[in-house]
Amino acid sequence: MFATPLRQQPPNAASQSQGKAMPLGMDGHDKPFQYEITDHGYGKDAVKVLHVSRQGPVHTIQEFEVGTHLKLYSKKDYYQGNNSDIVATDSQKNTVYLLAKKYGVESPEKFALLLAKHFINKYSHVEEAHVHVEAYPWQRICQDETKTQVTNGQSQGQAQTQTQAGGSCNFSSIDNRSLHNHAFIFTPTAQHYCDVVMRRTDPKQTVITGIKGLRVLKTTQSSFVNFVNDEFRSLPDQYDRIFSTVVDCSWEYSETDSVDFSRAWQTVKNIIIRNFAGDPQVGVSSPSVQHTLYLSERQVLDVLPQVSVISMTMPNKHYFNFDTKPFQQIVPGDNNEVFIPVDKPHGTIYAQLARRNINSHL
Amino acid sequence: MFATPLRQQPPNAASQSQGKAMPLGMDGHDKPFQYEITDHGYGKDAVKVLHVSRQGPVHTIQEFEVGTHLKLYSKKDYYQGNNSDIVATDSQKNTVYLLAKKYGVESPEKFALLLAKHFINKYSHVEEAHVHVEAYPWQRICQDETKTQVTNGQSQGQAQTQTQAGGSCNFSSIDNRSLHNHAFIFTPTAQHYCDVVMRRTDPKQTVITGIKGLRVLKTTQSSFVNFVNDEFRSLPDQYDRIFSTVVDCSWEYSETDSVDFSRAWQTVKNIIIRNFAGDPQVGVSSPSVQHTLYLSERQVLDVLPQVSVISMTMPNKHYFNFDTKPFQQIVPGDNNEVFIPVDKPHGTIYAQLARRNINSHL
Amino acid sequence: MFATPLRQQPPNAASQSQGKAMPLGMDGHDKPFQYEITDHGYGKDAVKVLHVSRQGPVHTIQEFEVGTHLKLYSKKDYYQGNNSDIVATDSQKNTVYLLAKKYGVESPEKFALLLAKHFINKYSHVEEAHVHVEAYPWQRICQDETKTQVTNGQSQGQAQTQTQAGGSCNFSSIDNRSLHNHAFIFTPTAQHYCDVVMRRTDPKQTVITGIKGLRVLKTTQSSFVNFVNDEFRSLPDQYDRIFSTVVDCSWEYSETDSVDFSRAWQTVKNIIIRNFAGDPQVGVSSPSVQHTLYLSERQVLDVLPQVSVISMTMPNKHYFNFDTKPFQQIVPGDNNEVFIPVDKPHGTIYAQLARRNINSHL
Amino acid sequence: MFATPLRQQPPNAASQSQGKAMPLGMDGHDKPFQYEITDHGYGKDAVKVLHVSRQGPVHTIQEFEVGTHLKLYSKKDYYQGNNSDIVATDSQKNTVYLLAKKYGVESPEKFALLLAKHFINKYSHVEEAHVHVEAYPWQRICQDETKTQVTNGQSQGQAQTQTQAGGSCNFSSIDNRSLHNHAFIFTPTAQHYCDVVMRRTDPKQTVITGIKGLRVLKTTQSSFVNFVNDEFRSLPDQYDRIFSTVVDCSWEYSETDSVDFSRAWQTVKNIIIRNFAGDPQVGVSSPSVQHTLYLSERQVLDVLPQVSVISMTMPNKHYFNFDTKPFQQIVPGDNNEVFIPVDKPHGTIYAQLARRNINSHL
Repeated sequence: MFATPLRQQPPNAASQSQGKAMPLGMDGHDKPFQYEITDHGYGKDAVKVLHVSRQGPVHTIQEFEVGTHLKLYSKKDYYQGNNSDIVATDSQKNTVYLLAKKYGVESPEKFALLLAKHFINKYSHVEEAHVHVEAYPWQRICQDETKTQVTNGQSQGQAQTQTQAGGSCNFSSIDNRSLHNHAFIFTPTAQHYCDVVMRRTDPKQTVITGIKGLRVLKTTQSSFVNFVNDEFRSLPDQYDRIFSTVVDCSWEYSETDSVDFSRAWQTVKNIIIRNFAGDPQVGVSSPSVQHTLYLSERQVLDVLPQVSVISMTMPNKHYFNFDTKPFQQIVPGDNNEVFIPVDKPHGTIYAQLARRNINSHL
Repeated sequence: MFATPLRQQPPNAASQSQGKAMPLGMDGHDKPFQYEITDHGYGKDAVKVLHVSRQGPVHTIQEFEVGTHLKLYSKKDYYQGNNSDIVATDSQKNTVYLLAKKYGVESPEKFALLLAKHFINKYSHVEEAHVHVEAYPWQRICQDETKTQVTNGQSQGQAQTQTQAGGSCNFSSIDNRSLHNHAFIFTPTAQHYCDVVMRRTDPKQTVITGIKGLRVLKTTQSSFVNFVNDEFRSLPDQYDRIFSTVVDCSWEYSETDSVDFSRAWQTVKNIIIRNFAGDPQVGVSSPSVQHTLYLSERQVLDVLPQVSVISMTMPNKHYFNFDTKPFQQIVPGDNNEVFIPVDKPHGTIYAQLARRNINSHL
Repeated sequence: MFATPLRQQPPNAASQSQGKAMPLGMDGHDKPFQYEITDHGYGKDAVKVLHVSRQGPVHTIQEFEVGTHLKLYSKKDYYQGNNSDIVATDSQKNTVYLLAKKYGVESPEKFALLLAKHFINKYSHVEEAHVHVEAYPWQRICQDETKTQVTNGQSQGQAQTQTQAGGSCNFSSIDNRSLHNHAFIFTPTAQHYCDVVMRRTDPKQTVITGIKGLRVLKTTQSSFVNFVNDEFRSLPDQYDRIFSTVVDCSWEYSETDSVDFSRAWQTVKNIIIRNFAGDPQVGVSSPSVQHTLYLSERQVLDVLPQVSVISMTMPNKHYFNFDTKPFQQIVPGDNNEVFIPVDKPHGTIYAQLARRNINSHL
Repeated sequence: MFATPLRQQPPNAASQSQGKAMPLGMDGHDKPFQYEITDHGYGKDAVKVLHVSRQGPVHTIQEFEVGTHLKLYSKKDYYQGNNSDIVATDSQKNTVYLLAKKYGVESPEKFALLLAKHFINKYSHVEEAHVHVEAYPWQRICQDETKTQVTNGQSQGQAQTQTQAGGSCNFSSIDNRSLHNHAFIFTPTAQHYCDVVMRRTDPKQTVITGIKGLRVLKTTQSSFVNFVNDEFRSLPDQYDRIFSTVVDCSWEYSETDSVDFSRAWQTVKNIIIRNFAGDPQVGVSSPSVQHTLYLSERQVLDVLPQVSVISMTMPNKHYFNFDTKPFQQIVPGDNNEVFIPVDKPHGTIYAQLARRNINSHL
């Protein structure tokens, strides 16, 4: 998708900086007062950590990639090469491991809040702390009915049928007894990540949670018709097309004390899937990616009162009909079975939906 | 892993080529008879195709990336720039779509066999056809109990618990009624691929199936002790370590008529998971990656009589204890909760297990 | 690096929207007036295009990946599924190819400006057009002195020496006669990209240019000492370390009529390399990534008066000394020759430097 | 490209194993003598290492990713979980660093030979050692004429012209004085890698060197006509097409004592470029990828007597004409300027050329 333009200042950063009476021209440059640093920060990215919680024989894991960024009041490291205020990125890395050890790890959001608070509380010369966490999609392995089947060839057929019915479950059963105590399988159907920003002058932290990489496809109940028709158009109206997308979605919490972050993430994911797929028998009609995207966002705001604003991007992953007209000798008639999946280019549709009268940090 | 060395001739290729009385020195080069082409081929790779089967309201999909390679008897295209024997790779691409349309698509193996047979039967100047298929891991979306929960905040807690119990199922239920008729979710826990090679002079095709990218982790029941101890060793014996791997596995069928390829793939996957994880309550002890790998391979040969040989690679994805010794002030005592996942380097263990007295094409 | 938080509204978007008297609650939702779309847009990304300019025997190429995004005044596509204002992303894709054909392609910036102006001028219901272009780093092949060497084994030694002296040149010579008329080699030492945003209500477009992926390393003249020393620190002062980074840099032009975009890009790239490497004999001392980054930014503003603001990110790609202490039997003494390159984690340092009294669009 | 089928036994492995009187059924399995391990091995992959050679102020670097694999005579680690013969992959990793420290690093091939010999000589229970090395494409930074230009806007134009003439050189000059003593730039136009295999029973090691990722494009002097015309063909004869490929090439040395590995690699690279591009003024006509590939291979065997066999793969990266017929209103006439680059699918052409009467290890 689009490259991010220049890093953007938070809206109120300018006034804060002025309040701090920034020492102009402190760089001793021969053109004093000419330039100023208008945004800055540093930290450690891609700190990989696995936390294992061992409660008797049942082990629970969280594997994260963590980024921590600090913004210092001083800019003497940039202007003068004076490092005396720098909390080394190596020390930030140590902090990730040490706080995981000391306090445990429950969810991406809780751990990011813990780290951000630590940096603000520990170092009075830190103006702002930003923590980013990406969770690895480990799931507990569950033992399925194929257990006996393996040593008994005759029962394979039935077991297979049940496995397929179970959707993405492997070794599957929703019977609690068969969940494995300490073994896990990587299940990347969608990624959970979050960003927490804490500012010294702001009593309230920003907490943003996101879903990445949720890829879905439906074979009917999608149309795209009656769009602008001019000399640049060659696409005919499409009354029944393949619809496939890889959802990216993020939302901000206006209030975090009452939120069960993991459950909320699962709820948003289910809302997106349901608005895309509709009823299992008849589906749901989509007149455009735009409309489907909007309905998902609206339902999230309906269901989760703590969410103030939600943003969603739905690329339109194209599947074109293979044109069989030149090959009527081989395959006579129309083709509505064979499609060419196209990686590039792809459509991109996005929108941000907010509650009215909300003061967003974004 | 290791780069593949130079492409290798099939064992009996040399004698076949000699039988064809290869025209030596036909390139008109000034040093005739000096060099010879000892392997060659061409084709189209990464042909993306989606096939939709529409049986009433229930749609079934197969999305593949297909590669087709042909080996011609003649080498005049190389030696002389004479293209008259070349079935263009563009035509090969058309063939993928046209045969999908004409005959439908059931499994990677069946489709690869269909294509390979077509090329051999259609073009008498083709000596060998090789078809590679990678299947996209689409799964039918299933509607779960959270349906009512979304409009009723109170029931979220219970629904969440059930969802987690269901393992990797999203929108989960193994109740058949709730499987979606025409909507699918991308579930890349492991990839299914196959290679089919058909040779004109050989009555029997080679069919190889594989699993890629099956990533698992367990937090106990893995040790690695009593290995060579010399001056290059710094790793202590490990009595209870994290064990994580990303399994790559492929196997050859000695007989294909009686095989349900999709079921066999699922069976191998389950065997690998079970040998890695063991009993859901107590697990299974692993003294080394080598031994665990061997036990999986052996069980596959035990259970699937049509498999003549199986090869498996298990990288050892390392997780090192974070050393808290320098930080006793912050976190006193030992650390067995916080680990550093390491991307590079990684161990690599592989072995190929075969039935005795089998003539493998490999 | 950090995931982008929720898409951000341009600072003056809110007032513009209000000026358009947005029809509140037009979605017919049962909770009218409750939510509003606060940002939106759609387009086509990753449109790959190669343009060949044929001036006699000399051909010039530009290969781009282009993204075009439009923001419509109306949101009825989201609220109501009404597509009548949508310029299909397929038509946008056609536009990329057709304008390339009609007007030719000179530089990423010129082509992005052409496209953005087209969308604003052609469609009065488009509020804003955003075009992103990434250029492929093709370079004209140049024939080097090894030409005769190939048929004359004796001269290989000398030719090789010259080739190495020529730096990254392959087939190298700066003699103009030996530049190839129509053959090119992919040389990804750094990528050139740009973003152009044009708003109907704003007489002046935003033009941002960037460099991505410029990777450099020096083996001395870098230190990092006298940083915060507390209980979370374990890194000793580093008086002579490896310094390696992969520069990302972007800048905004306050004025574009007088800019030679390709030359400016090359100038910024050279400034970055020079501030990193310093004099070829003695180098330049770097007390921190922060300071080196700042000096580069400052010099860009010094040299290019049309640049109003520049942002730069320098990850700190770590190279750790391999600890030979446990292996004194094998390699006695200290080690300052063998290092472990570390992919994750990495430091991240960034800053944005602006001229004072500049009204930036960012 | 194609997935590698099952790992293949070296041709003489079977007889060697029998010579060792392999203890059949030593696994205590209930079906003894039924299966046998027909290939096996283990090691460490992706060991990243940077070696710095400091000769006064001039520093020279080599950054590699190294893989080391050992094949033990015993298989008791697989069959019985007995680790007593295992040289831990962690110890192998240490060995990479320690030998780099002890002996220095000159070229990928020399370092791979050093490691392979070490493992064979040090551990008598190792049957075979395989070392793979990938070199990072660092190049010494060279200072170019733009130095003065930066502080003098007027001279930019001329400097730019010279820079472009210099091909891929940045900071460019072939004047030796301006090569930087200790600063380097990553220049990934092509990758150098090698594989060395040493077997205890074989007096002669296998040394294979390769080039990966050499991407080139030419805009004329390529045709593809007179290929098979049947009902599966839709591509017309192409008399003047874009030709672009990403060359993968590897070759085996029959003799290594007299080889300057770095110079040989550069020679092969230049041969490939020259056979693709031809004369800088008029180019060279290519009737097919097959023919161009063959000519390159033949010239390598002509020029480098130590190369016994060479294998090359040239994907055909397609660039299709954008069809302007439906848009005659906008762009009348034909289109031979605007092309659609296609990532998938791509053609694949490969061939292996060997000297006659050579006993290859492959």
